[in-house]
Amino acid sequence: MRHPSDDATPAPRRRRRDRADIREQVYDAAILLFGRKGYADTSIAEIAESAGIGRGTFFNYFRSKDCLVTLWRRDRLNRLTTRLDPLLAAADGTAEALGTCMSILSTLNEEEPELSAAMLIAWLQTGHSLHHCPHLQLLFADIVEQGRARGEIRSAVDPGRIGDTLHDLYFGALHRWILPAGDSARPRLDPELQTGLTLLMQGLIPPRR
Amino acid sequence: MRHPSDDATPAPRRRRRDRADIREQVYDAAILLFGRKGYADTSIAEIAESAGIGRGTFFNYFRSKDCLVTLWRRDRLNRLTTRLDPLLAAADGTAEALGTCMSILSTLNEEEPELSAAMLIAWLQTGHSLHHCPHLQLLFADIVEQGRARGEIRSAVDPGRIGDTLHDLYFGALHRWILPAGDSARPRLDPELQTGLTLLMQGLIPPRR
Repeated sequence: MRHPSDDATPAPRRRRRDRADIREQVYDAAILLFGRKGYADTSIAEIAESAGIGRGTFFNYFRSKDCLVTLWRRDRLNRLTTRLDPLLAAADGTAEALGTCMSILSTLNEEEPELSAAMLIAWLQTGHSLHHCPHLQLLFADIVEQGRARGEIRSAVDPGRIGDTLHDLYFGALHRWILPAGDSARPRLDPELQTGLTLLMQGLIPPRR
Repeated sequence: MRHPSDDATPAPRRRRRDRADIREQVYDAAILLFGRKGYADTSIAEIAESAGIGRGTFFNYFRSKDCLVTLWRRDRLNRLTTRLDPLLAAADGTAEALGTCMSILSTLNEEEPELSAAMLIAWLQTGHSLHHCPHLQLLFADIVEQGRARGEIRSAVDPGRIGDTLHDLYFGALHRWILPAGDSARPRLDPELQTGLTLLMQGLIPPRR
């Protein structure tokens, strides 16, 4: 004899799944619109319409439009670590590990340049960039810490501080890539990041003869 | 016999001077309000009232509230070069010259922390930070170029690129200084900038034995 619950997912669990599905639909619709029109020019009403829900219903899923920016950053960071982890294990030394990290960051941005630009601008204009959100810094610091343990990094300097510096180099290069000077074409991001990394690894002072 | 024009400045010139005076009053009133209340929370009506002019008259002097941010940045840059120029002539080498530059930048920010914070936030939120405005980069690049000519900087690297990197380090440290993580007190800006500069000068790779 079959039990009634064999037929289908129990109602409370199904409701939870439906809710998660709709939340994801709203998120996906928002990200698509941000990439097309920019963050500031996309209204909550448009996001709701595009996801097939009412404007008021949006707030059952997200507290504000702002939250979507934070979620996107988290999602981007997850994609970075998913691609990075297997490569890090195979990297030959600190410079190569950091170089790989910069390459993946370049690829992630260059795969969706309009969306990346829109989300950086949103990150700045919503004031998020001013709040301490040290995930990338910690990721860099961790690579540096391991390199220091192997004697590949000067031991006098704090890995956390180097993590901050690598983050600053990335963020600066990303700015210049998003909106290049004057009429010049958007440069490639990766060579810019690799040059910055090499500068920091080798230092500006010429080697002693 | 006295000529009428001896009595006073000719009318057209006086009108020009009056206009410049009022413009300066509006600018000063705006900057005072930005430092007290922040850029976003200061309205054009408040600026006008505080400067003793009508709201509509504001637009005879400035195209937008936005313009005041650009003007302030220019003013800040002028104060930097005024203090820097006599010290640069006396600096002993590139590292000292760049260190002096970072020190003055620290002092300028620490002399008026609330206003500096308000103007950085305004710079980000108005989208100005995304436009190429390479004055500070060029100032750094110029110091590096001179150091390279004296053999104090590795000749393989482009001074313009180093100028960008030094700017990125400054901007990152300024961010962390403006809004420190969690409840921690605002750190001193100068040690942070000097550490970043030393990292870049010496590089992360340990010296060969």
